[in-house]
Amino acid sequence: MTNPENRSTLILQWLKEIKSYIIEQKNSDLNVEQKTADNDLVTKMDRSIEEQLVKKIRKHFPGDKVVGEEGFGDDVSSMDGTVWFIDPIDGTLNFVKQQENFAVMLAVYEDGIGQSAYVFDITQDKLYSATKGGGVSRNGQRLAEPDNLSLKEGLIAASSALMMKEEKTTIRDIGNTSMGVRMLGSAGLESVEVAKGSVVAYIASNLKPWDVAPGLVFMEELGMSAVTFTDEPIDLLTNNDIIFSTKNAHKDIIKMLNA
Amino acid sequence: MTNPENRSTLILQWLKEIKSYIIEQKNSDLNVEQKTADNDLVTKMDRSIEEQLVKKIRKHFPGDKVVGEEGFGDDVSSMDGTVWFIDPIDGTLNFVKQQENFAVMLAVYEDGIGQSAYVFDITQDKLYSATKGGGVSRNGQRLAEPDNLSLKEGLIAASSALMMKEEKTTIRDIGNTSMGVRMLGSAGLESVEVAKGSVVAYIASNLKPWDVAPGLVFMEELGMSAVTFTDEPIDLLTNNDIIFSTKNAHKDIIKMLNA
Repeated sequence: MTNPENRSTLILQWLKEIKSYIIEQKNSDLNVEQKTADNDLVTKMDRSIEEQLVKKIRKHFPGDKVVGEEGFGDDVSSMDGTVWFIDPIDGTLNFVKQQENFAVMLAVYEDGIGQSAYVFDITQDKLYSATKGGGVSRNGQRLAEPDNLSLKEGLIAASSALMMKEEKTTIRDIGNTSMGVRMLGSAGLESVEVAKGSVVAYIASNLKPWDVAPGLVFMEELGMSAVTFTDEPIDLLTNNDIIFSTKNAHKDIIKMLNA
Repeated sequence: MTNPENRSTLILQWLKEIKSYIIEQKNSDLNVEQKTADNDLVTKMDRSIEEQLVKKIRKHFPGDKVVGEEGFGDDVSSMDGTVWFIDPIDGTLNFVKQQENFAVMLAVYEDGIGQSAYVFDITQDKLYSATKGGGVSRNGQRLAEPDNLSLKEGLIAASSALMMKEEKTTIRDIGNTSMGVRMLGSAGLESVEVAKGSVVAYIASNLKPWDVAPGLVFMEELGMSAVTFTDEPIDLLTNNDIIFSTKNAHKDIIKMLNA
């Protein structure tokens, strides 16, 4: 049985090491490569960070399973036992083009229940973290639960890929019902925006498990809503169209998606 | 005749005072009011900052004209002489809803030529400034001229109001030709993104003179492009649909707008 405090201490240490590594290497040649498309980039840093992390997890927690973006993890087909989700650099396009607005992400689930989650905004030096039953914190300072605002009472965040599709008129209707749309290009940082109450919802399509796993823990801890576009629970073994939101914005958005 | 160095020193002092005022007052009741629409908000801080600034400008530079968002300035119908543009809080919606991602903006023109410009990201404590012939700086450190990337080689920033309109299919085409769209909700901070090279273009419709005046100086200083959607120079006496961009992205975008 894992000792959760020991695990948290290790994770915090690893994240600190990753931060130093990124800051050191940021100005070196990134060896940017295209994965599936022009805007699906991977750098040697994505790979190197994940490889190191997976190695450490395997050493300290040999019975655990790992789901990682860059393929150093396992082929996981069940949430039984302890499953780690790793996104070494969430927002790689921002990382390459802006050298900011990206995050290192990690989440740990036990038998399908989120135990801890981390979204580390490296350039801002802001670590958002959650542990089961302990709420969500920024650099150790606990965040207040956001007000339960409706869709029209707040801003929303959305993924560029989704919002720009010509046929997605309902998504733009949802955007136009809100006070305005913000797009940051990082699922992790946009999950944080919901957790902070800076937006009432984050809507994105086709997110990978590692994009979603930390935010799901944040929503749980803050009593907020996390569902798919068909109002089902999010399944971390597959890709999902997701809505992270206040409870009231959840009702408004689901009504519009199913109108 | 104005002494530009004396003016710069005064402006920097005023901006420092405004920063202290905002940080002091941020947690007080903002007295948010709607102006023309649900998402066109004004706070007592917008008004108070502009009122104080206009008072100071009138005292030190009694012959100058002032164009301000909140109406404490003059009714300006010509760019002759010295004209100040003030946006006390650019991104008021972010200010109210997020308590970040807003900027204090100021620009000074003489006979239609930009002399100095300031975009102050208060919560990040980053002051972006330009003086004619002196380039653009962040907290006094000069920014490099961004690479002249084409539209498809970079991200773009756009205004939510523009991008979400159903009929604006060409604008979304432009977004989809780029590597991705980012929306911050502050014309000032989005102008800065272009100046930093974080995006290759910022596209927005119906911007007011005070939204555009500082970014126009930034573009000029960095040898970048600043035009209307019809490829005309931007007129600071009226509202404009604007494109701030690299020279190559400018060509790509104008071609698509006029296809």
